Amino acid sequence: MTDVFSIPVRIYYEDTDTGGVVYYANYLRFMERARTELLRSRGLEQDVLRDECGVLFAVRRAEVDYLKPAKLDDELKVTAEIRRLGGASINFYQEVRLGEDVLCKGNIRIACIHDEALAPMAVPKRVTELLQPVVRRAPDGGEQ
Amino acid sequence: MTDVFSIPVRIYYEDTDTGGVVYYANYLRFMERARTELLRSRGLEQDVLRDECGVLFAVRRAEVDYLKPAKLDDELKVTAEIRRLGGASINFYQEVRLGEDVLCKGNIRIACIHDEALAPMAVPKRVTELLQPVVRRAPDGGEQ
Amino acid sequence: MTDVFSIPVRIYYEDTDTGGVVYYANYLRFMERARTELLRSRGLEQDVLRDECGVLFAVRRAEVDYLKPAKLDDELKVTAEIRRLGGASINFYQEVRLGEDVLCKGNIRIACIHDEALAPMAVPKRVTELLQPVVRRAPDGGEQ
Amino acid sequence: MTDVFSIPVRIYYEDTDTGGVVYYANYLRFMERARTELLRSRGLEQDVLRDECGVLFAVRRAEVDYLKPAKLDDELKVTAEIRRLGGASINFYQEVRLGEDVLCKGNIRIACIHDEALAPMAVPKRVTELLQPVVRRAPDGGEQ
Repeated sequence: MTDVFSIPVRIYYEDTDTGGVVYYANYLRFMERARTELLRSRGLEQDVLRDECGVLFAVRRAEVDYLKPAKLDDELKVTAEIRRLGGASINFYQEVRLGEDVLCKGNIRIACIHDEALAPMAVPKRVTELLQPVVRRAPDGGEQ
Repeated sequence: MTDVFSIPVRIYYEDTDTGGVVYYANYLRFMERARTELLRSRGLEQDVLRDECGVLFAVRRAEVDYLKPAKLDDELKVTAEIRRLGGASINFYQEVRLGEDVLCKGNIRIACIHDEALAPMAVPKRVTELLQPVVRRAPDGGEQ
Repeated sequence: MTDVFSIPVRIYYEDTDTGGVVYYANYLRFMERARTELLRSRGLEQDVLRDECGVLFAVRRAEVDYLKPAKLDDELKVTAEIRRLGGASINFYQEVRLGEDVLCKGNIRIACIHDEALAPMAVPKRVTELLQPVVRRAPDGGEQ
Repeated sequence: MTDVFSIPVRIYYEDTDTGGVVYYANYLRFMERARTELLRSRGLEQDVLRDECGVLFAVRRAEVDYLKPAKLDDELKVTAEIRRLGGASINFYQEVRLGEDVLCKGNIRIACIHDEALAPMAVPKRVTELLQPVVRRAPDGGEQ
């Protein structure tokens, strides 16, 4: 099986807090960057999708476990794997790693919504076709 | 039973994104403000606790459900309830509301860590004593 | 003369960085909150203005002097004064204060732009009428 | 003369606001990333400098002109040039570019402060030695 998709994320002052570590909400920013780049690597640009299909990707649920803190100047690796591609939602599993350490992991459920009605809509067919090849079941065969 | 603790949060441009709604990570900022104010309302200032006990409050796990979006200029109410006060952790249940609508809800587990070792430590006794009176079990009697 | 318009801003973890102080870009967030509340206090809601006049307020220039740092749990006062109301722009002078200390001060020039063309447009007449009464020249009679 | 130092910055949802463009304070985040990478390219890591010399780099003044807006998915280039290396401060000139367009430009003055006293201190000798070779006067010979 191919490697898990990931992007590098460098930690700057903007990401840290006075506790000396990365502020907890910021890991969600990093995870979204990785999801966006996974889509882009499959030929899906969110601004184009919005213009052509009127679709926005909205987070419906986020479960995040914080295991170890990241710090200033760390160079992290943030992964993104699609675990399930549903009719109206997409489930991602993501990790934030420093070398071999997993600092943070998350299960993120995305729903497609219409950009004007802000109501749920089906995942556009083009999105499904381009993402289906990179769906990865969890090691235990489950969805997460 | 007394009302649930809450703070008002006004939405500014800084909180929104080009999707026309509040960016998903920002609800975690609002929830932390409410937790901080709940502690403060009980006489607990985090900078004092750090100086006196060397304790930092670190988020260990966050589960957040996004139900409806908030928008520019909304005046939200963000609640914070302590559901469980453990030996080394504190569980919060929180909602973000616009009028009667619940836009977002979260279960947040906080651990006490030492500010130099960045290792787990027991919840300081003063913290437990001041928070015990405001622990609220969930309506169904469970912890969440 | 009446008091300068101001809002309180409490400092939370989200605002700080690992240097132990408030991250420098965040003062611009606080200043915008104060400008928005000054407009609101005059009956001007930015979302309504956008819907009715198609106008967005865009920052054209910001000059900020950082004098002393703010820290976690500080309760700041952020001022907003209109120094000049032009045909297509509005100049603000703002301070961030902790008690009697001025921590930070800024001159911010806002331009009106059309929300679809993203091109400059005149300050809407209703805006000028409502803001004219609160224009305050600088103590030395100049515009800044 | 060699090319100006720059880094690429991709625009994500986190950077935008409901006006459809990048939120104005975020350009300061991008500019700091570029300054940090310029220092790093000269062998200067801020966390090491803090541990060894007790020095923090604090912004004393920022002047920013916003010329055109950046948008979601833009891939920007953010430059950093040292215009003046003083005894206790460093002046940077920076641009944010999209292709040939300059979207935003800034003059940023940094002061060295001691991380415990939070008081001004001289630029450490090692910093001066490593940065002197990359000081670039402005095209007109002035400092900005």
